[in-house]
Amino acid sequence: MPPSQADQAAGLEHVSTEAPGRRTPLTPRAKARAQTIADILRLGREHLAVSGAAALSLRAIARHLGFVSSAVYRYVESRDELLTLLLIDAYDELGDEVEAAVGAAGPGDHRASFHALCRAVRSWALREPARYALLFGSPVPGYQAAPERTTGPGTRVIVRLMAILDAAYRAGALADGGTTAAAVPGKLAADLEAIRSEFHLELPAALLAAGALVWTSLFGAVSFEVFGQYGADTFKARDELFEHHLAVLEGLAGLSG
Amino acid sequence: MPPSQADQAAGLEHVSTEAPGRRTPLTPRAKARAQTIADILRLGREHLAVSGAAALSLRAIARHLGFVSSAVYRYVESRDELLTLLLIDAYDELGDEVEAAVGAAGPGDHRASFHALCRAVRSWALREPARYALLFGSPVPGYQAAPERTTGPGTRVIVRLMAILDAAYRAGALADGGTTAAAVPGKLAADLEAIRSEFHLELPAALLAAGALVWTSLFGAVSFEVFGQYGADTFKARDELFEHHLAVLEGLAGLSG
Repeated sequence: MPPSQADQAAGLEHVSTEAPGRRTPLTPRAKARAQTIADILRLGREHLAVSGAAALSLRAIARHLGFVSSAVYRYVESRDELLTLLLIDAYDELGDEVEAAVGAAGPGDHRASFHALCRAVRSWALREPARYALLFGSPVPGYQAAPERTTGPGTRVIVRLMAILDAAYRAGALADGGTTAAAVPGKLAADLEAIRSEFHLELPAALLAAGALVWTSLFGAVSFEVFGQYGADTFKARDELFEHHLAVLEGLAGLSG
Repeated sequence: MPPSQADQAAGLEHVSTEAPGRRTPLTPRAKARAQTIADILRLGREHLAVSGAAALSLRAIARHLGFVSSAVYRYVESRDELLTLLLIDAYDELGDEVEAAVGAAGPGDHRASFHALCRAVRSWALREPARYALLFGSPVPGYQAAPERTTGPGTRVIVRLMAILDAAYRAGALADGGTTAAAVPGKLAADLEAIRSEFHLELPAALLAAGALVWTSLFGAVSFEVFGQYGADTFKARDELFEHHLAVLEGLAGLSG
């Protein structure tokens, strides 16, 4: 098996195997099956870029592969299953790039970690606009989500962001930033307390709420850029605009104090 | 003509007439034509909600209206023209609701105006998720935009937001908010200067850049809520979360000083 096929099969185990810890050698039949599913995913990514998520069609992919359309369902059982596989695949690629960027920034430098995370999100989004749109754009009409499979990959960026802010707080490197003046009413406090408890955060509620806003603001700015909301002429200095936003957002998160 | 048809015809003039100031009485033929285009738009909005923008089909709408598919093109010449009409229609409804909300807040109360604008955006988005997705979600594959027709309606919210911040600045009611500490490098400064000049703003560059971030952050938070990014259980107190975000964002804009 050439390396690219091995990589694809390994990638596939990652998304489709029930017990990812157990890596038994694949039989030739299982290898062929994994290769076919990898081909379907690759074509799915291409169709996503050309036609968008809502028009994704397993039949069209089957034609592309030279299958009769009924045969493709032996590999990927439905359009929704294909969307779920593409979601997991994209979330994990984004998550891997964010982890790598944050790792390279060094664990003790909270601001550098924050900047690395934000820049990695934007870089991936600009390179993969169709997959970014699948993750963060319009919901796909009729898609029945599989949250038990997508929530893990889909929360890697926010979990990493919260870990950076929490580490900064524990190190005494997180200032108030003025955001704690905003009241946190009871029902919201209960939501935040549940998050603090689930992720073992020391971050106080008001800073956690500000962190959630930093998270949606990061994606808001990236979505406006990737989805073409700025218009052709309004902001030509996109890199500098984003860096300016990061400087403001790190203040909002409490990191620049 | 019953009132509902009159309203629809009037609404149509709004989106399709070259000279909106001139309102000559419609001939019966023109009335019938306006009514048909209004029906096509209404069905377009319904299909948007069921199938999404990417799957919008003039042929399907023609079938719905009992036309042969070639006949529908005499009224709306292409799918892209239908998308452009739906964009203008949605941008204008959003713009009208934002204007009305800000108007009700009173011109002298800058913070109340800001809150009213943000709440109006969120309310419209939650009520019209499919049209919100058309405006602010994934780009529609293959759509050739008509910026000369959509830019005016599409910039009403940001123009209004900048007017609120500029009025607050002129009234001495806009504080630094800490955001002016972020450097505005040369190329970004040129972009901001062009915006200040085009819209006759006194708002300094750093506050204008912060205002742009407030704008994308507002839509980032609304998109995460409308597109289902928060997950089912993470934030139950959505109203309170949004109000908390507004309190932080008004600080970021400099309004709470």
